[in-house]
Amino acid sequence: MKEVNTTIIREMHSDVPLIPQLANYLIASGGKRLRPLLTLATSRLLQANMEHAYNLAAAVEFIHTATLLHDDVVDGSQERRGQTSANLVFGNQETVLVGDFLFSRAFQLMVKTESLEILGILSKASSIIAEGEILQLQYQGNLLIDWDIYKKMIGAKTASLFSASCEISGALAKDKAAQDALRTYGYNLGIAFQITDDTLDYEAQEDKLGKNIGDDFREGKITAPILFALEHATLTEREFWERTLVRHEIQNNDLEHATSLMIRHGALERSKDLAREYAQKATLSLESIPTLSLDRELISLLKALPTSIVSRLS
Amino acid sequence: MKEVNTTIIREMHSDVPLIPQLANYLIASGGKRLRPLLTLATSRLLQANMEHAYNLAAAVEFIHTATLLHDDVVDGSQERRGQTSANLVFGNQETVLVGDFLFSRAFQLMVKTESLEILGILSKASSIIAEGEILQLQYQGNLLIDWDIYKKMIGAKTASLFSASCEISGALAKDKAAQDALRTYGYNLGIAFQITDDTLDYEAQEDKLGKNIGDDFREGKITAPILFALEHATLTEREFWERTLVRHEIQNNDLEHATSLMIRHGALERSKDLAREYAQKATLSLESIPTLSLDRELISLLKALPTSIVSRLS
Repeated sequence: MKEVNTTIIREMHSDVPLIPQLANYLIASGGKRLRPLLTLATSRLLQANMEHAYNLAAAVEFIHTATLLHDDVVDGSQERRGQTSANLVFGNQETVLVGDFLFSRAFQLMVKTESLEILGILSKASSIIAEGEILQLQYQGNLLIDWDIYKKMIGAKTASLFSASCEISGALAKDKAAQDALRTYGYNLGIAFQITDDTLDYEAQEDKLGKNIGDDFREGKITAPILFALEHATLTEREFWERTLVRHEIQNNDLEHATSLMIRHGALERSKDLAREYAQKATLSLESIPTLSLDRELISLLKALPTSIVSRLS
Repeated sequence: MKEVNTTIIREMHSDVPLIPQLANYLIASGGKRLRPLLTLATSRLLQANMEHAYNLAAAVEFIHTATLLHDDVVDGSQERRGQTSANLVFGNQETVLVGDFLFSRAFQLMVKTESLEILGILSKASSIIAEGEILQLQYQGNLLIDWDIYKKMIGAKTASLFSASCEISGALAKDKAAQDALRTYGYNLGIAFQITDDTLDYEAQEDKLGKNIGDDFREGKITAPILFALEHATLTEREFWERTLVRHEIQNNDLEHATSLMIRHGALERSKDLAREYAQKATLSLESIPTLSLDRELISLLKALPTSIVSRLS
């Protein structure tokens, strides 16, 4: 990851000083760098060209950072990773444009690997992410959302980049079988990750996560815990969800009441079960890669990662 | 261009209906499609693969459209091409995200041409555009801007895409000499185009242009006519520019006064002369392409285009 960090610092340079300032404000703020880590680990596993892998890992992190910057403008966010969000510090306009810069720079980095297949995988993932974000925006405050729509949404906005971050290593190593396995691994891992994140929004420790509990609730985002609570809602409960999520009339203690309804209907448990199920699917996807010649320690790590992500849930 | 329009319609399709709706709202609003036209004309001139040229022309228009959508959000625009701008009709959030979608889709289209060189040219141009936009934002209301900074700014935000739109045809035809000539042609044409546009902002017929006279003035954008008027400003005049452009205290008749100062100092004439000079440079750049085997009518058209663009100036 040290090589990737060096690449990130070098590639976000620009004659316009605001660009590295703003980009670094978010990048250095202690994100988990899960996506570039996945690219590195899977590339090393397949003994792919690591110089190319460093560039690709940086490209993946740039795409992710660009979407976060645009998200923060889109959502009017005030906080990200426990600090004031970039849009508030640097301005909405600057944040949109630095996002555009990072996105373009990501493609410049990809070109260096000289693989059209990889450019195809990541440009497709990028357009799917945008579709997912728009879908989420359109369903904000819409109580008709169900598991299928929710899965499509998180599959697009989150799992597609996890999937691409892993798949490109297979393409880099020119190993078709591994590429298919890693695509599925990344997708399932992404779904598990997002359900976990959405569930933690109702039960995390504020100081630990660097985000405020109940953000999704206040923004009217219908995530797994809410849609499972909605399925079993009484008429009175439905009226409560309509007032808070659709009409955004939120009073003191509404978040506590929302959480208590989730507990009453087992919605948090069901979300956790699903996160665990997708984590297991992810681990299983790796079974199809012939392990004979592979680094045993690394494959064990990749197999354990999904469970470790889901274990953030109590 | 019919083929390009078909490609544009097909490629902006998405399962999320808002995407083609919003994209088409801007794309169908009667833009000049100058950039895709340049790609088509120069590709035909060099007898390049036209199937690839259609995809590249659509990609270039998608990049341009994405930057316009983001610009409108960044500037808080109310009007674009004589109609209410997309951000007001569809919302800022939707507009940013559809811009991201079109941008990603542009790269997917480029991948189809299977030329890493072209992907390199267009991804570099995209990051330079973002740098130019940020530079412009930072210099808004800064009276210290001079010709060099202004040229760098419009070179980045406008001329770089004009340049790339032409250069890629040389790369597609694998003709290095033509590629160099077309890169310079596009760059000079872009500079001429932007100076023309900036000058028309102070003397166009409103109904003809579909944009309001004085938009740049009201936004505090320091363009060629202002910077030339500033060069010769008296102390009183300087105080006027500071009040209007820096402090944004704009009163009735200020725009008329600004225009009269530009006329007094010959700033509009100087801008027009520069636009004509760059138009001429563009035409001259084409001389280095050996014309023996080329379509005479097409080369004449490309040589006449810069003058025709500048001729919008009275």
